[in-house]
Amino acid sequence: MADQYPSRSDCPINYALESFGDKWTLLIIRDLMFNAKQSFGELLTSPEKISTNILTDRLKSLEATGIISREVCADNRSKCVYSLTAKGRDLLPIMLEITQWSARHYKDVSTPAAFLKRLDEDKAGVIRQIKAMWDDQQKP
Amino acid sequence: MADQYPSRSDCPINYALESFGDKWTLLIIRDLMFNAKQSFGELLTSPEKISTNILTDRLKSLEATGIISREVCADNRSKCVYSLTAKGRDLLPIMLEITQWSARHYKDVSTPAAFLKRLDEDKAGVIRQIKAMWDDQQKP
Repeated sequence: MADQYPSRSDCPINYALESFGDKWTLLIIRDLMFNAKQSFGELLTSPEKISTNILTDRLKSLEATGIISREVCADNRSKCVYSLTAKGRDLLPIMLEITQWSARHYKDVSTPAAFLKRLDEDKAGVIRQIKAMWDDQQKP
Repeated sequence: MADQYPSRSDCPINYALESFGDKWTLLIIRDLMFNAKQSFGELLTSPEKISTNILTDRLKSLEATGIISREVCADNRSKCVYSLTAKGRDLLPIMLEITQWSARHYKDVSTPAAFLKRLDEDKAGVIRQIKAMWDDQQKP
């Protein structure tokens, strides 16, 4: 995908859709971003029940578009560790806007009410806090 | 879609993906939101070259999930007029976040630099201005 990316137009909405425009990719990003998942096996165990072949395909696309990186474990490929790149982490504001939109329009959304309240009151603060946490995790 | 919506989980990201998680739907929303398109024929003429069968399918889904409404023209169905509902217009902050993310990661993005600058400096102001314009359009 990446070598002819984007293929349809230079519209920013299109660029985003060529990066994550399908029913599964944002769920993988969600799990890497908020649910501390790292391995193929962990990414398989989400309530939406992604299949192994779709997960394999979407992880390859996400690597090709620079949204995730894969740490190769020399002797056991099944234990590879996936993580968001800076470009992937930069999707945080979009993920939070999506969370708020869904919460406004679907009353049974699973997000804790306290978190939604914080987002409504101080989204910039929530973003700062999550980014600071990521920075801490990267310290040796 | 709407009667068993969402079908996979109550996660807000999943709710959004079941609403617009594919390669085309957000382009239709873009054209209704920013490009003053209203008719089936107008929606067909975008650089990404959506096909008539995909456009028909996605318009039906968008109606089913309450994101667009269709004004039925009694004697000429091909002249129906589509528009975003309040729920559809409420996607504006997501669309703007996506625009900014794409602009940060793809240098050839088609969005005018002046608009990106305004978004970076005062996104809340841009949102207020667009909403005020929509309100004006609805006045008799």
